[in-house]
Amino acid sequence: MNIQQLITQNHLELLFQQGTFGIEKESQRIDEKGKIVTTPHPKVFGNRSYHPYIQTDFAESQLELITPPQQSVKDAYRWLSAIHEVVLRSLPENEYLSPFSMPLALPPESEIKVAQLDNVEDVAYREHLVESYGKYKQMISGIHYNFQLADDLIEKLFQLQKTYQDPIAFRNDLYLKLGRNFLRYQWLLVYLFAASPSVENAFFRKGQQIPQQFVRSLRSSHYGYVNHAEIKVSYENLQQYVETLEHWVRSGKLIAEKEFYSNIRFRGAKKQVRELLEKGIRYLEFRLFDLNPFAQYGIELEDAEFIHYFVLLMLWLEKTADQGDVEKGREMLAEVALEHPLSITAYQQEGLALFDQFEQMLAQLNAPESVKQTVQQKRQQLLSPEMTLCGRLVQSMQQPTDYHQLGLTLAKQNKAAATARYYALTAFDNMELSTQALMFDLIQQGIKTEILDENDQFLCLQVGDHIEYVKNGNMTSKDSYISPLIMENKVVTKKVLAKAGFNVPQSLEFRNVEDAVRAYPLFEHRAVVIKPKSTNFGLGITIFKQGVENREDFRQAVEIAFREDKEVMIEDYLVGTEYRFFVLGDDTLAVLLREPANVIGDGQHTVAELVAAKNEHPLRGDGSRTPLKKIALGDIEKLQLKEQGLTVDSVPEKGRKVQLRANSNISTGGDSIDMTDLMHPSYKALAVGITKAMGAAVCGVDLIVPDYTKPAEPKLSSWGVIEANFNPMMMMHIFPYQGKSRRVTKNVIKMLFPELF
Amino acid sequence: MNIQQLITQNHLELLFQQGTFGIEKESQRIDEKGKIVTTPHPKVFGNRSYHPYIQTDFAESQLELITPPQQSVKDAYRWLSAIHEVVLRSLPENEYLSPFSMPLALPPESEIKVAQLDNVEDVAYREHLVESYGKYKQMISGIHYNFQLADDLIEKLFQLQKTYQDPIAFRNDLYLKLGRNFLRYQWLLVYLFAASPSVENAFFRKGQQIPQQFVRSLRSSHYGYVNHAEIKVSYENLQQYVETLEHWVRSGKLIAEKEFYSNIRFRGAKKQVRELLEKGIRYLEFRLFDLNPFAQYGIELEDAEFIHYFVLLMLWLEKTADQGDVEKGREMLAEVALEHPLSITAYQQEGLALFDQFEQMLAQLNAPESVKQTVQQKRQQLLSPEMTLCGRLVQSMQQPTDYHQLGLTLAKQNKAAATARYYALTAFDNMELSTQALMFDLIQQGIKTEILDENDQFLCLQVGDHIEYVKNGNMTSKDSYISPLIMENKVVTKKVLAKAGFNVPQSLEFRNVEDAVRAYPLFEHRAVVIKPKSTNFGLGITIFKQGVENREDFRQAVEIAFREDKEVMIEDYLVGTEYRFFVLGDDTLAVLLREPANVIGDGQHTVAELVAAKNEHPLRGDGSRTPLKKIALGDIEKLQLKEQGLTVDSVPEKGRKVQLRANSNISTGGDSIDMTDLMHPSYKALAVGITKAMGAAVCGVDLIVPDYTKPAEPKLSSWGVIEANFNPMMMMHIFPYQGKSRRVTKNVIKMLFPELF
Repeated sequence: MNIQQLITQNHLELLFQQGTFGIEKESQRIDEKGKIVTTPHPKVFGNRSYHPYIQTDFAESQLELITPPQQSVKDAYRWLSAIHEVVLRSLPENEYLSPFSMPLALPPESEIKVAQLDNVEDVAYREHLVESYGKYKQMISGIHYNFQLADDLIEKLFQLQKTYQDPIAFRNDLYLKLGRNFLRYQWLLVYLFAASPSVENAFFRKGQQIPQQFVRSLRSSHYGYVNHAEIKVSYENLQQYVETLEHWVRSGKLIAEKEFYSNIRFRGAKKQVRELLEKGIRYLEFRLFDLNPFAQYGIELEDAEFIHYFVLLMLWLEKTADQGDVEKGREMLAEVALEHPLSITAYQQEGLALFDQFEQMLAQLNAPESVKQTVQQKRQQLLSPEMTLCGRLVQSMQQPTDYHQLGLTLAKQNKAAATARYYALTAFDNMELSTQALMFDLIQQGIKTEILDENDQFLCLQVGDHIEYVKNGNMTSKDSYISPLIMENKVVTKKVLAKAGFNVPQSLEFRNVEDAVRAYPLFEHRAVVIKPKSTNFGLGITIFKQGVENREDFRQAVEIAFREDKEVMIEDYLVGTEYRFFVLGDDTLAVLLREPANVIGDGQHTVAELVAAKNEHPLRGDGSRTPLKKIALGDIEKLQLKEQGLTVDSVPEKGRKVQLRANSNISTGGDSIDMTDLMHPSYKALAVGITKAMGAAVCGVDLIVPDYTKPAEPKLSSWGVIEANFNPMMMMHIFPYQGKSRRVTKNVIKMLFPELF
Repeated sequence: MNIQQLITQNHLELLFQQGTFGIEKESQRIDEKGKIVTTPHPKVFGNRSYHPYIQTDFAESQLELITPPQQSVKDAYRWLSAIHEVVLRSLPENEYLSPFSMPLALPPESEIKVAQLDNVEDVAYREHLVESYGKYKQMISGIHYNFQLADDLIEKLFQLQKTYQDPIAFRNDLYLKLGRNFLRYQWLLVYLFAASPSVENAFFRKGQQIPQQFVRSLRSSHYGYVNHAEIKVSYENLQQYVETLEHWVRSGKLIAEKEFYSNIRFRGAKKQVRELLEKGIRYLEFRLFDLNPFAQYGIELEDAEFIHYFVLLMLWLEKTADQGDVEKGREMLAEVALEHPLSITAYQQEGLALFDQFEQMLAQLNAPESVKQTVQQKRQQLLSPEMTLCGRLVQSMQQPTDYHQLGLTLAKQNKAAATARYYALTAFDNMELSTQALMFDLIQQGIKTEILDENDQFLCLQVGDHIEYVKNGNMTSKDSYISPLIMENKVVTKKVLAKAGFNVPQSLEFRNVEDAVRAYPLFEHRAVVIKPKSTNFGLGITIFKQGVENREDFRQAVEIAFREDKEVMIEDYLVGTEYRFFVLGDDTLAVLLREPANVIGDGQHTVAELVAAKNEHPLRGDGSRTPLKKIALGDIEKLQLKEQGLTVDSVPEKGRKVQLRANSNISTGGDSIDMTDLMHPSYKALAVGITKAMGAAVCGVDLIVPDYTKPAEPKLSSWGVIEANFNPMMMMHIFPYQGKSRRVTKNVIKMLFPELF
């Protein structure tokens, strides 16, 4: 079987480049001095017994970040980014993630705790490792790269070939070929991506010879995480692989199959290797990657793409490595690992030859240009070792001890970068902020999340067999369908709320002045607002706050309104302030006051300067990517200033509040002020009742309240409901301009998965 | 207090004309010979213990149709129409509603059953009436007209006047004035609206003098439904009214308060008159109206409007009748009732004087022109008795016995008219047919229904304290909100269904030919359809039913598709026929096959003639007012004919099916064929599963099934799901072109109110 021919003759190039990808990245939590911490795994990361994204590896301090399997490297990388942002923002203030595979600074061995997992066997296994290798060696971190070929590809290749009768045997041999070739040529990846040139001396065991110079990869060398030399496992075929591995476990040389530290692992549906014989190899795990300290998430996207094609090359090659080649490859790896990072590698010629084949493959596959360019750059690195990752790394250190300071600087930089836009998940920034906030909480809490439709903000969440769908952050199965339909229709909303006994302002619409004036008696003595149906910047609006008492005044107000529109609306006027109540289930979780865009004078700066200063607030931005919006200085704002006798160049006196807008929308630069703890509980109870009357689980209720300190009374002058909103905005409660943050997205999760709380 | 002044000086004219209205109409069920039936109250009308719309009066045969209170006469009248249509379509084939107040033909007295109500006291009361009056007298039917002044009006008048301190006393005296004046002038209404000139002789009691000529109103005369002459009740004030009435009950002359047959009743919140002293009079019931045999629903809308203004006039009059006037009015009524319908009434002059005041009032109120015209016509009838209702009636009869034949003819006409558009509720024809069908069932079943928004098809249903909202006939609280959101998004729908293990055709979209051709291996050997993303009359579509086997054919199909659109979709092609499964809860209630518009040749008629004949079907119409649509003969149909080598003038051979459309939509003249009983149950179970996977309560699932007789197998060649629709159309199942009707609206009601079933 010639794979190259099968692929090119049958036009399988595209399918060959498809696959499923996952990245696992270990990192030590370190303190502000770079020392591995001895604090427990943060509680905020939920339960490690099921957490799909945030686990601990050997030590309690050693975070393992796991992306869900994705259909592209890019998507896996987005998840890696998101999980990092969640972790870095959730760590205590004085904790960071070490950017290096090798520890920066070690605490006394006795203070290192193995991961405190629920499963007793998992803990026992770790205790055994301590016995065999000591705790320090277990402090090493790296990246594991999971890859699965497209099922369709394997199926088509199977149909096209004639050697195999059994599709599982065929699939196994594909992966075995890939695996053996990988082990043969893995030295090249270490040459390119190694980044563990040094470590503090305390790491080395007593009596051990300490390297006297920088090396390429301590981690991949015999100083690193390797089995005793006698542990040899056969890759000739799957049967021998399983049997030799089981042999070492039976003999007690390995305590478990997973103690076999190969740079490649064959993965099936279950953990035991024997199961592979029945169901076959499903995917491969590559384990030899050092953390890239210059990459924010331990690996660069283009390198992850490169690795994908390198792995494909291992299948593409005409030659299939045998067991001897595998052994040879391992020796070459050990050798390259200990070369000086700035030296030409001993295997440069083999590497260049392999790159020739690599480039031929890319040409034949019609691979993306970006990949071809990356491969050219990597080829160049064979000639210029100072351009390799480790070459660049050692050049940025004057002496081995600079390693510590560099690591600390990078760790702090990475944390700062991940926290800068703390209200967003950078990798999912094309989605709404509220969905980003929800995803943040889901990742933190460890709830399996699948993005069903990114543009449509559609998520599928799963805990065990329990599946929930969420759209736009809070549209879920918990609301009944009729609720949003009621809320969409203002007439029906009013009728439903009035029927349920809530204070609702009544309104009537008119199409001519005479009809409205005939209806005057209906409004006499009532506080009403008379307005054009489509209001434009408040033109044509008259408010009778004290009640309309005079027919002629009424007529005049109606005529003014009709100048602006063909339809005029006369509505009960509610005196008071509008508050947004965010209700979920039986609770009002947040109350917010929205104030129109404004600045406060200081007697020194102009309005324009005050606006510019206020716009510096980190939550303010343009467009939809920030929770608050910058105040504009357009026509509407200037008109508003004019009404107050001001221009943008006026210098308002100290303490004077200058309004820049009449409307209080956050989207036009308004301020959001949390009032949850100040609002009298009677209004919060009303908002819950209104939500229930709508049949809704989540609702944004807008109430007018004249005095939030006094208890609500059953009359329109005490309070009135203006609107009920399904899919209410959450960001303004989570990131208010003033006051306490209300993390309502967490309550959405609690509502959907009560079994977790 | 001068009401006229208060109203005109304070501009209360509009408020004065507002109010709440209700109509109750009794009718005897009669057989095809006109005889009152002895069959029980039809079971289909549900339970009389709570039915708000369809009750029985004295006898089991005597239907009482009750409109809910409405804010306008017109709306009350619409309900009267709707309830009539429900009743007439629900009666057994050989039963009708008598159009006359007086019985057409009487069965032996022993065969007449009093209404078989659940409440023992209600039955006992009826048995007592039999004792006192005999059963025949209780066979008389009429219309009761309920009216309540606007609360706002009474409140404003109370504030404006200075005589009363107590608002309830004020309200009572308003209604008492209105009531006394009404009793004083009621003779005029009898003159205008009486319609019981005759009855069969069997009606009269033995020894009773039988009128020898037509009279205006037997029903309002002493032959009718009146108390013994000694029963006199005082209307001087509410206290006396209550006490005198209670006196007659205590003395045993009346068995209950309700045996007092006044033409006006004061109504409170409860049935006992004593309660009026505490809570006051809430509304008035006027009871003197004979059924108008020429009106489809026993009363004409313009007459109902006239009565409203006549009642207002009774309040408007400066003079307030006293008890003496009340007695006088009753005597005048008795006299007018027995006048010959074609004679000038004895009280013509008083009547004309009253009309003068009537017209002045209308002018001062600025009442609608239509009302002014009606009032002018009625005034004319005082001069021309042959124009009164009873005048017209007796003119259409040669002799008293023609009464029987006329009644029978009108009864049959009315039933035919109410049944003509049996798929609609005429009065609510501006709403969707499915909402009309649901309202039909709600009225029939006796579920309180309020229309919250007519344009938006929004209903509020209530049984006891249990409230449900329904939009568009089947959007309810039973669906979860996420369901329609999933179904709205085709990508998400496919993912959710695939995840749940259902057969879903996969599809990919492409933006250029090369990308699509590169993806060829993904489609090889699969049955696919290649089509422009926005399809236009099937242009650019290629289907590979047997699987695509050739790369060049594939490329060609892709190129053809790209000629029509910038985006091309390649989708698994499902071989088979599309069926619509209507699922509600755990059941597939209906399965429908939709066939594209077609005619079957007969070897004699042209295509155009065949289409014209098919379009005669009663369910076919234009626009949205019929369940099926007429087949058009436009460009698309002609193109379709051309492809079959035909024109509209061709005469297709006998049995040849001629397609007029490629698409199977009902909206373009397609046929709907019920397949519920033929479809293999395995597909119905799948449709239920798909609905559940969507979290929906009601769902229209479109499945492709090649052979509906064979059980479903778990592969795409056995079946596939094309689409899941929330708010699925119901009319096509209720009124299919062929096959059995599936009344799915009834199941919606069962789902919402399981406690009733």
